[in-house]
Amino acid sequence: MENDRFKSRLDLLRQKIYIVIYGVNTPAGKAFDVGLLFFILLSVLVIMLETIEGIDVIFHRELIVLEWIFTIIFSIEYALRIFCSKKPLKYIFSFYGIIDLLSILPMFLSVFLAGSNVLSSFRILRLLRVFRVLKLMDFIQESSKLKVALLASRAKIIVFLYTVMIISVTVGTLMYYIEGPGNGFTSIPKSIFYTIVTLTTVGYGDMVPVTPVGQFLSMVLMITGYGIIAVPTGIVSVEIAKQVAGKAEKTDKTLTEKHKKRLNGIVCSHCNYEGHNDDAHYCCNCGSKLNV
Amino acid sequence: MENDRFKSRLDLLRQKIYIVIYGVNTPAGKAFDVGLLFFILLSVLVIMLETIEGIDVIFHRELIVLEWIFTIIFSIEYALRIFCSKKPLKYIFSFYGIIDLLSILPMFLSVFLAGSNVLSSFRILRLLRVFRVLKLMDFIQESSKLKVALLASRAKIIVFLYTVMIISVTVGTLMYYIEGPGNGFTSIPKSIFYTIVTLTTVGYGDMVPVTPVGQFLSMVLMITGYGIIAVPTGIVSVEIAKQVAGKAEKTDKTLTEKHKKRLNGIVCSHCNYEGHNDDAHYCCNCGSKLNV
Amino acid sequence: MENDRFKSRLDLLRQKIYIVIYGVNTPAGKAFDVGLLFFILLSVLVIMLETIEGIDVIFHRELIVLEWIFTIIFSIEYALRIFCSKKPLKYIFSFYGIIDLLSILPMFLSVFLAGSNVLSSFRILRLLRVFRVLKLMDFIQESSKLKVALLASRAKIIVFLYTVMIISVTVGTLMYYIEGPGNGFTSIPKSIFYTIVTLTTVGYGDMVPVTPVGQFLSMVLMITGYGIIAVPTGIVSVEIAKQVAGKAEKTDKTLTEKHKKRLNGIVCSHCNYEGHNDDAHYCCNCGSKLNV
Amino acid sequence: MENDRFKSRLDLLRQKIYIVIYGVNTPAGKAFDVGLLFFILLSVLVIMLETIEGIDVIFHRELIVLEWIFTIIFSIEYALRIFCSKKPLKYIFSFYGIIDLLSILPMFLSVFLAGSNVLSSFRILRLLRVFRVLKLMDFIQESSKLKVALLASRAKIIVFLYTVMIISVTVGTLMYYIEGPGNGFTSIPKSIFYTIVTLTTVGYGDMVPVTPVGQFLSMVLMITGYGIIAVPTGIVSVEIAKQVAGKAEKTDKTLTEKHKKRLNGIVCSHCNYEGHNDDAHYCCNCGSKLNV
Repeated sequence: MENDRFKSRLDLLRQKIYIVIYGVNTPAGKAFDVGLLFFILLSVLVIMLETIEGIDVIFHRELIVLEWIFTIIFSIEYALRIFCSKKPLKYIFSFYGIIDLLSILPMFLSVFLAGSNVLSSFRILRLLRVFRVLKLMDFIQESSKLKVALLASRAKIIVFLYTVMIISVTVGTLMYYIEGPGNGFTSIPKSIFYTIVTLTTVGYGDMVPVTPVGQFLSMVLMITGYGIIAVPTGIVSVEIAKQVAGKAEKTDKTLTEKHKKRLNGIVCSHCNYEGHNDDAHYCCNCGSKLNV
Repeated sequence: MENDRFKSRLDLLRQKIYIVIYGVNTPAGKAFDVGLLFFILLSVLVIMLETIEGIDVIFHRELIVLEWIFTIIFSIEYALRIFCSKKPLKYIFSFYGIIDLLSILPMFLSVFLAGSNVLSSFRILRLLRVFRVLKLMDFIQESSKLKVALLASRAKIIVFLYTVMIISVTVGTLMYYIEGPGNGFTSIPKSIFYTIVTLTTVGYGDMVPVTPVGQFLSMVLMITGYGIIAVPTGIVSVEIAKQVAGKAEKTDKTLTEKHKKRLNGIVCSHCNYEGHNDDAHYCCNCGSKLNV
Repeated sequence: MENDRFKSRLDLLRQKIYIVIYGVNTPAGKAFDVGLLFFILLSVLVIMLETIEGIDVIFHRELIVLEWIFTIIFSIEYALRIFCSKKPLKYIFSFYGIIDLLSILPMFLSVFLAGSNVLSSFRILRLLRVFRVLKLMDFIQESSKLKVALLASRAKIIVFLYTVMIISVTVGTLMYYIEGPGNGFTSIPKSIFYTIVTLTTVGYGDMVPVTPVGQFLSMVLMITGYGIIAVPTGIVSVEIAKQVAGKAEKTDKTLTEKHKKRLNGIVCSHCNYEGHNDDAHYCCNCGSKLNV
Repeated sequence: MENDRFKSRLDLLRQKIYIVIYGVNTPAGKAFDVGLLFFILLSVLVIMLETIEGIDVIFHRELIVLEWIFTIIFSIEYALRIFCSKKPLKYIFSFYGIIDLLSILPMFLSVFLAGSNVLSSFRILRLLRVFRVLKLMDFIQESSKLKVALLASRAKIIVFLYTVMIISVTVGTLMYYIEGPGNGFTSIPKSIFYTIVTLTTVGYGDMVPVTPVGQFLSMVLMITGYGIIAVPTGIVSVEIAKQVAGKAEKTDKTLTEKHKKRLNGIVCSHCNYEGHNDDAHYCCNCGSKLNV
């Protein structure tokens, strides 16, 4: 019985922790999410800073201490997640379960293994954990509206992308034969890379046409790219406008419904006149009493 | 009679193959299109990879084997197309007939001729064969809608392109005289190339103005290019919106037609006049009492 | 009297030439415009080719012969314009009169003067003559529509340009103090040049931030530039949409006017009822005869 | 009493100056604003020119003279602002008060202190004074309209910026591991810089992917950047359209109000009921005959 009481207490604790970790509506759940987000972003920032040579040399010690703090925090979180889930194994082998493990494992392994540089780069996967936290946030609604707009114009966008691809491959191949390896267009894939760089108006400038024909073709390509950007823009604009109008129309419909109610309904038994105001007691056509 | 039966069987076979090759509604026709598309794209990919020096050196043997496989497949297809078409000569000398031949010829010629490198580059024309297959695909409909939108705004787009061209030539010429060959603007066409690179916001950076006047003019040019991209975008957006609204209006018109019927429902029993206001008591044509 | 007849004949000829040169509605006038446009564009092309060193060396002789042909054609045109205009001096000193003269003078002067290279560059002013011809073309109408759309949103566009300028100057100055002359940001105007190059997404790459702060500011600048391009696009889209809608509304109004005419007008002298169909002979309310 | 009169005169003068400096509706106030704006912009231009080495060497003397003139003018303005404000201390320690002081201080300090180069760069803060003057200008109204449009679509824009950031960090990190420090991607922050440069279609070209995988990822990134620019454009377009439509609707509402009046014009003389249909003969409220 002692055991039972302990078990039920443990269950209660498990449930409480579950609500904190997975819930969003309680203050504790919200605080947990915000705190976790903060530590994830900070730890990602530290990993980024580590890759800058100058910083790593000077602050090597501090960065490692910070990294251990993050690892311990995430380890506790990982343990709690296993503890509070009803099917721990399911969590451990789920997508986020593996990500969570990969986020903490490299530091522990670095104690036993000497050159675990490759492993340590796995820590950047923590970035993916941000998505889990953000999935619960408010502004997802706005995001889903945009997604609806983009999905509604999916067919048009695919046609657009397909056109971009056809242009890229065709013009890229042409550019390879026009300019040739001597002018930096060493292969067809590289020429296609150049074409996309030009069509999307990115324009690195690492490859530049030298022959007059190549330059002319590139000019046509640039103006094409400059012009056809109008197509996705037009599509998405109209789609968003439709969404907004759809909402407005709904409101309008409701109003019209009300309007109809206000105006219609009763037929005069004397003169069959329709279209009385709904507060009318007498027919406005023949003056006889209405059966309200 | 034996001969006749054989001929009619051959005709039947010819017809069956014709349906498979040119048809799209049968499962076999669809499978043929998808398979052909797959082989064309794969063969184009192989040709592309051949142009990358590193790959060609290591996998030279494998690439040639693959190329022979593609050539044999396309040769069979070519033979079947000639076999099943009613006017073989018409097909052979049609646009796609020549493309088909040029797609397979280089490999056969490479057996007899030593240095047929130039010829082998004709194989890239297989890319054009993609268009024949895709012409039959579903999403062409969506594409034609976009085409309608672009055609409807043709006049506006021509004016826009004309403006871009005038700006390019004028500013390009100015830049040549401002910067001069010393700063990389070696000729007017090259300066026009620079102007278009800048106006379309591509910005390679291979030519950059050095003089203060040239830099100022370039800044004006950039902001112009940044701003006037709004024009094609605006045009296309409105055109697409009109198309969408056009569809909606059609639905509306049908509704209005119904409404009109509702209004003009009474027919005068005396003079058969239709189209009375729905609050009319007497026929507005002959003055006889209406049966409301 | 002989003199008089000659004079009147001369006047007739002058008038005829005037119609050919300045008119656009006669076939001769149209042919003249097209021919002139062709020669202007060809001569501009020749001037451009002259600036390419390789071409000038090989085809020097041919280019000079072509140039003399153009000069003679334009000289005849210039003489005819003076001849047929009623106030020759007014034409000579008008904007296009001076341009016309500058288009032909350099070649004649090159006979007498040795090093007239500077003068010869004036010939490029012929480009401006294109505008005179094109002013008469059809598609000007479409162009003026776009101009109306742009003018209508003038105030908004000025605010936009002003914002771009404020950002450019402020961020450009900041970049100068952040990066400094050591990293290529040698002066504030050059830093402003960099800022505009970045904000308009042109991105030459001749100047690139090196310090972390400068890189961060540049990233913010890029995303800003990437985002605020939406503003002019939105403005122009709406303006064009309004224009199109305006036209549609006009058509609607005309229809409504017709509708009103069809419905309204006669008041029954008996019951003062309004709103009879316009083919009504009897009042549809009381049945009394109408005074049509 | 003499003192009092002097004081009241001083007060009057103070009030007059106040109106000139802070007012915009009087001609003097307007002239003051325009003049001040002119001097600020000129002085900023001079500071910019000073940073160009070539100009500073040749015109060093002239620039210093100009700088002293500006400093004296701004000092007088500063003194007048202190004089005419009711709470001088409040002005002195306000944001613009400090800016005003920092605009003039460096020149005075340069007399006493030798190497005040760092201080002199504070003069560029004069640029901020432009905003105070412009705050009073007319076209602010147009600007606030745009601001309303942008604020209304704030949620959507944040989602868009968030998406851009997620893509930048994720792809930037990927690019670091794909390309590596050997190809110029020396750290994750630098790779993120590259990603934003590419996504926003700026494309400096200082860092360019070399590996096939990196090039492929960059191509996808470019097309993504090229495509998703449609999202902010669509959002802002719709928002501006709504604003314009909102105005139009207001006008419509007013018209509808009138229409309603036209329809409901008759007041029942018996029960004072308003709002009868305009073809009503009897009051629909009490059944008494209406005076049509």
